[in-house]
Amino acid sequence: MPRDIFILTENELRNAVRLDVKAVDVVEEAFAALGTGKVVMPPILSMAIPEANGEVDVKTAYIPGFDGFAIKVSPGFFDNPKLGLPSLNGLMILFSAKTGLVEALLLDNGYLTDVRTAAAGAVAARHLAPQAVETAGVMGTGVQARLQIEAAHLVRPFKRVLVWGRNAEKAAACAKDIAASLGIEARAEKDPARLVAESQLVVTTTPAEEPILKADWLHPGLHITAMGSDQEGKNEIDPRALVAVDLYVADRASQCEKLGELRSAIAAGVWKGGTPAELGGILQGQPGRANEDQVTICDLTGTGAQDTAIATFALAEAKVAGAGSVIES
Amino acid sequence: MPRDIFILTENELRNAVRLDVKAVDVVEEAFAALGTGKVVMPPILSMAIPEANGEVDVKTAYIPGFDGFAIKVSPGFFDNPKLGLPSLNGLMILFSAKTGLVEALLLDNGYLTDVRTAAAGAVAARHLAPQAVETAGVMGTGVQARLQIEAAHLVRPFKRVLVWGRNAEKAAACAKDIAASLGIEARAEKDPARLVAESQLVVTTTPAEEPILKADWLHPGLHITAMGSDQEGKNEIDPRALVAVDLYVADRASQCEKLGELRSAIAAGVWKGGTPAELGGILQGQPGRANEDQVTICDLTGTGAQDTAIATFALAEAKVAGAGSVIES
Repeated sequence: MPRDIFILTENELRNAVRLDVKAVDVVEEAFAALGTGKVVMPPILSMAIPEANGEVDVKTAYIPGFDGFAIKVSPGFFDNPKLGLPSLNGLMILFSAKTGLVEALLLDNGYLTDVRTAAAGAVAARHLAPQAVETAGVMGTGVQARLQIEAAHLVRPFKRVLVWGRNAEKAAACAKDIAASLGIEARAEKDPARLVAESQLVVTTTPAEEPILKADWLHPGLHITAMGSDQEGKNEIDPRALVAVDLYVADRASQCEKLGELRSAIAAGVWKGGTPAELGGILQGQPGRANEDQVTICDLTGTGAQDTAIATFALAEAKVAGAGSVIES
Repeated sequence: MPRDIFILTENELRNAVRLDVKAVDVVEEAFAALGTGKVVMPPILSMAIPEANGEVDVKTAYIPGFDGFAIKVSPGFFDNPKLGLPSLNGLMILFSAKTGLVEALLLDNGYLTDVRTAAAGAVAARHLAPQAVETAGVMGTGVQARLQIEAAHLVRPFKRVLVWGRNAEKAAACAKDIAASLGIEARAEKDPARLVAESQLVVTTTPAEEPILKADWLHPGLHITAMGSDQEGKNEIDPRALVAVDLYVADRASQCEKLGELRSAIAAGVWKGGTPAELGGILQGQPGRANEDQVTICDLTGTGAQDTAIATFALAEAKVAGAGSVIES
């Protein structure tokens, strides 16, 4: 039985959805829903294709009250740059939560994932970072390094950014881009310890498999958002840091135990805290940062709830703008 | 970075792919590949949406040697008929196995799933049913009842079909449809015991949650393909039958243990056979039916490998036919 399906291309989606406060609020709504315990969010489907140095993840979540749910497919093929192609791609499909019919194909090539991932960093900063952030530090020099700083700046309008990366040239280029986009001081910092010492907010955005941020570097009034680890082998934060801080918060405890910084802390035998706090729980009123001096970590592995929220928002925005085309399936 | 994506609608796919020997061979190739142990096939992602009496399953598999892999999304929303909509829908997305880029969107509304599911029944019948099948019985009266019989007839050209269903009218309608499509005798049979007694091949296609086929009804020279159970709560075959037969074969042991008839036999405590034979193993030369008198069961839960195979085939056939359209993502 053929039916109309709405199709949005990457360009149409880039025009419809920007990394702004609206997008942050949409993603915050997803976390708030997660905090109610009523979201249905199955474990991530993950498939490796070793021959191509590739993997594909599928995420989804049903959020009560939302008309639809997204299925998000994220392939990561890490030899693509050799072919002149980006490593990360994919699409989202929005289904009616009433009938299961395909409502829209969001051919975003990973753009909406970039936005919802950065927006989650902003939600974490909004609710866990000290109120006064003068300097923000970012570790990593890729797309998310830029976007995480852009998103965090929406909720903590810091005056200065420090960028650290293994490659000094890339760090300089990243700092230059951030300075241009935000119109603030941004520079590369070669010493990661100094970057952390001078920052009140640090975002780690690398695919590191050994910690790049040491527990010894923690200082009063620091918030760290770690968003690089989303797979078993990854680890950005010294496991001891997770127990040294005043508050460790997972985006989703069950995911962080398997894929996040929490996995490494459990594997190292240092985590004895049982099930940790979740970002959604904080949004629902559980204790968060108690004062400006506390030290906090938020561990982001990426949730299907964010995908459902951003896809729903993108479709609505695109329709308002009159963008998109319709195909009869 | 926008790129071309090939789009095929349900009608285009119906024209490109039919339930014929070619489709059966394509699905057989998928099972043969599974039998090599080299296919990467993660567990099914499954999400329930109780408010809408709905569920959605996502399946995938990477088959070495195939240029692409499919992600298949199957929503089942069982209140849809009240709205005049089919319960089962969905689509397949074909990705390059080299780069992870989206190659094609197959907007089949579940059609390719219907075909690959029926084709798997034919593969099971081809390799496990007695050579001489005079009468085939089908339990259930839905789409798969018709398609399973159509597919089985391609490999065992039986002369007579018996149809049993809880609803006598639906059974009569199903028999009439089968008689018309295959040009052979087909009639509804009220007594399921008699249906099994008179058949050499029985296919069960129901969503039953209590056995509809008793172990006492088994007789020499019978093959049963059970394709209805694909979820935890379902059970078509008396658990005792699985150990009473000469050979029980799973489409995928790890899936049947969780979702198939094997799950019920394990839960009932009657299965002591450890990991069972798989259809792919039989295709790779493991012992199958030894003679015309043996009794065999094949338990089909549906595999991502079938989806990758049928999607790859569908795209190739559509391209040969010049069907489809292209969208720049």
